[in-house]
Amino acid sequence: MNTATFKRDDLFNLALTLLTNAGLEPAKAEVVAELLVQTDELGVTTHGTSMVPYYLPELKAGMMTSEGSYEVVQDRKVTMVWDGTYLPGHWLMQQALDVCMARATEFGMAALSMRRAHHIGCLSTLTRIAADRGFVCYIATSDPSGKWVAPYGGTEPLLTPNPWAIGYPSREHPVLIDTCASITTVSKVRELINTGVQFAHPWMLDAAGNATTDPNVINADLRGSIQPVGGSDHGHKGFGLALMVEMLSQGLSGHGRAEEPERWGGNVFLQVMDPEAFAGKEAFEREVSHLNDLCRANRPLDAARPVRVPGDRASAALKAAQGGTVRLPQEVFARLEQSAAEYGVSMPSMC
Amino acid sequence: MNTATFKRDDLFNLALTLLTNAGLEPAKAEVVAELLVQTDELGVTTHGTSMVPYYLPELKAGMMTSEGSYEVVQDRKVTMVWDGTYLPGHWLMQQALDVCMARATEFGMAALSMRRAHHIGCLSTLTRIAADRGFVCYIATSDPSGKWVAPYGGTEPLLTPNPWAIGYPSREHPVLIDTCASITTVSKVRELINTGVQFAHPWMLDAAGNATTDPNVINADLRGSIQPVGGSDHGHKGFGLALMVEMLSQGLSGHGRAEEPERWGGNVFLQVMDPEAFAGKEAFEREVSHLNDLCRANRPLDAARPVRVPGDRASAALKAAQGGTVRLPQEVFARLEQSAAEYGVSMPSMC
Repeated sequence: MNTATFKRDDLFNLALTLLTNAGLEPAKAEVVAELLVQTDELGVTTHGTSMVPYYLPELKAGMMTSEGSYEVVQDRKVTMVWDGTYLPGHWLMQQALDVCMARATEFGMAALSMRRAHHIGCLSTLTRIAADRGFVCYIATSDPSGKWVAPYGGTEPLLTPNPWAIGYPSREHPVLIDTCASITTVSKVRELINTGVQFAHPWMLDAAGNATTDPNVINADLRGSIQPVGGSDHGHKGFGLALMVEMLSQGLSGHGRAEEPERWGGNVFLQVMDPEAFAGKEAFEREVSHLNDLCRANRPLDAARPVRVPGDRASAALKAAQGGTVRLPQEVFARLEQSAAEYGVSMPSMC
Repeated sequence: MNTATFKRDDLFNLALTLLTNAGLEPAKAEVVAELLVQTDELGVTTHGTSMVPYYLPELKAGMMTSEGSYEVVQDRKVTMVWDGTYLPGHWLMQQALDVCMARATEFGMAALSMRRAHHIGCLSTLTRIAADRGFVCYIATSDPSGKWVAPYGGTEPLLTPNPWAIGYPSREHPVLIDTCASITTVSKVRELINTGVQFAHPWMLDAAGNATTDPNVINADLRGSIQPVGGSDHGHKGFGLALMVEMLSQGLSGHGRAEEPERWGGNVFLQVMDPEAFAGKEAFEREVSHLNDLCRANRPLDAARPVRVPGDRASAALKAAQGGTVRLPQEVFARLEQSAAEYGVSMPSMC
């Protein structure tokens, strides 16, 4: 058995119960649980309810703040800075999206740079909320305590993978671009280390600066690093992206590596734009849908694998989840089972 | 002799004279000539006065509009759409920067999506204008008539290289990130074809979808393409970037591939942000300068080549140009000489 299927309501209740049992305020736990289940429904099970077992010890240790609200550092209507005080990232982002969508409706666009959020999870889950309501939504996030990627030309891990995403409406379903400034992610590196597998391509760099397929270089005495997008031959492009993400999320929020934080955190830059405040929704969708169609009609490299536009796979996953069930990989389900046992919560039955 | 040095005033006058002789309104020609010389001073001689010989036939043929102004399609103060009516991109961008900097000062940030500009030249020349005045400035540009890059997983050229840049202040000099969504550029491909050289890495794709170092695939009967950033193994990342650039510049401006334009044009998305409207200029510069210093101090792969932050090389080039002279490669100088002969204009003397 490689996967198990659960009712989405059961999975939501499991996440909610575990998070509240670990001390999270119920109103916040509801938002976190809901967005984690939505992430599973999008097919991104690495960032869905599988995150609960990582959040529980953070809550218990007081490293994820369990109650209260963010602090408004700056509010100029179109631009804002919040201090997330290490509250759950999902809850903070739900608030941030609500405010930025309202401001974008009023002013055409709005942006918020946030310091000291906790982990905000899957970016597409968040951009999709705004894209479904007709907005263009950009999110970039960095963790100023994390050091995994060397600057291009360097050898010492310094930057986070620096994920960024942009979601926007098109005629059929939202386009959901969700990527990062490094070739691969920390969780992929850990997964390969745990399963004893090498990368198919030289996506890592050892401490001497040699490109390698070996994920274990990240644990060497002299730590290796993850290559920036573009790798050895054009990694300056990923390095540029990384600097941009850290500038938007740390520079504009006024808090970052200069403060040398040592706990798990997520700085965030969020921008929401209303196509109606540019050339209009109809013209917007005409252009992006036309381009999407051209992409999908492009003669594929492999006839069995037509060109996909980012968001096509998520849309198919969402349709499959419409029956109210969610399928989880064995590895995720086993970890949830372990957390449930720890907290004396019974696991829901499989469908 | 591989380079020739000219007085910057002489080079400016040469560009100005050639452009006005080809019919461009003097006030516009002054802006174009000035920004082209600034680009040479930044060290980006591929996009400086070397562009004049390409602009002259466009002006003569009426494909670059020589007088008049842009049309305002939308003005919501914080968001704007202009129709550039194929006026010179440099002049349009100077106007756009002035408006967006003023709006960003008032509202915190501002964005403008522009349809039908002509070529806007070197993006760093433009972002630097705003960064020097303390702003964060993002520019992305696409040409909806150009087809050079296949979508990831496809084989037919469809997208432009889709350049984007971001400039922002730091304590010493602006950071100037200037890159694109494809591994290499159309001008680099042409240069290698002209000089009979292959790429060092498989940055091209032939029409069958094979990665290759051969730039000539772009001219094959079944045209090949330029690989997106990330190439064969992670080109979905460059593809995502490309879609974003076309959405911002064509979707938001309401004009693009759906209209099937066939002339050389540049759609543009410009965004200007004022760090003062976020956590303040001081905190902003503290964070970005701290990160820049960490990058430069990173143990380099090659001891002879310390890690450079984007903008470091431009800053050194600008210092070298402070004596009022500009050094041009032989190839650029020869092309200018040819244009000067065609228009009966005398070439300035070398220093």
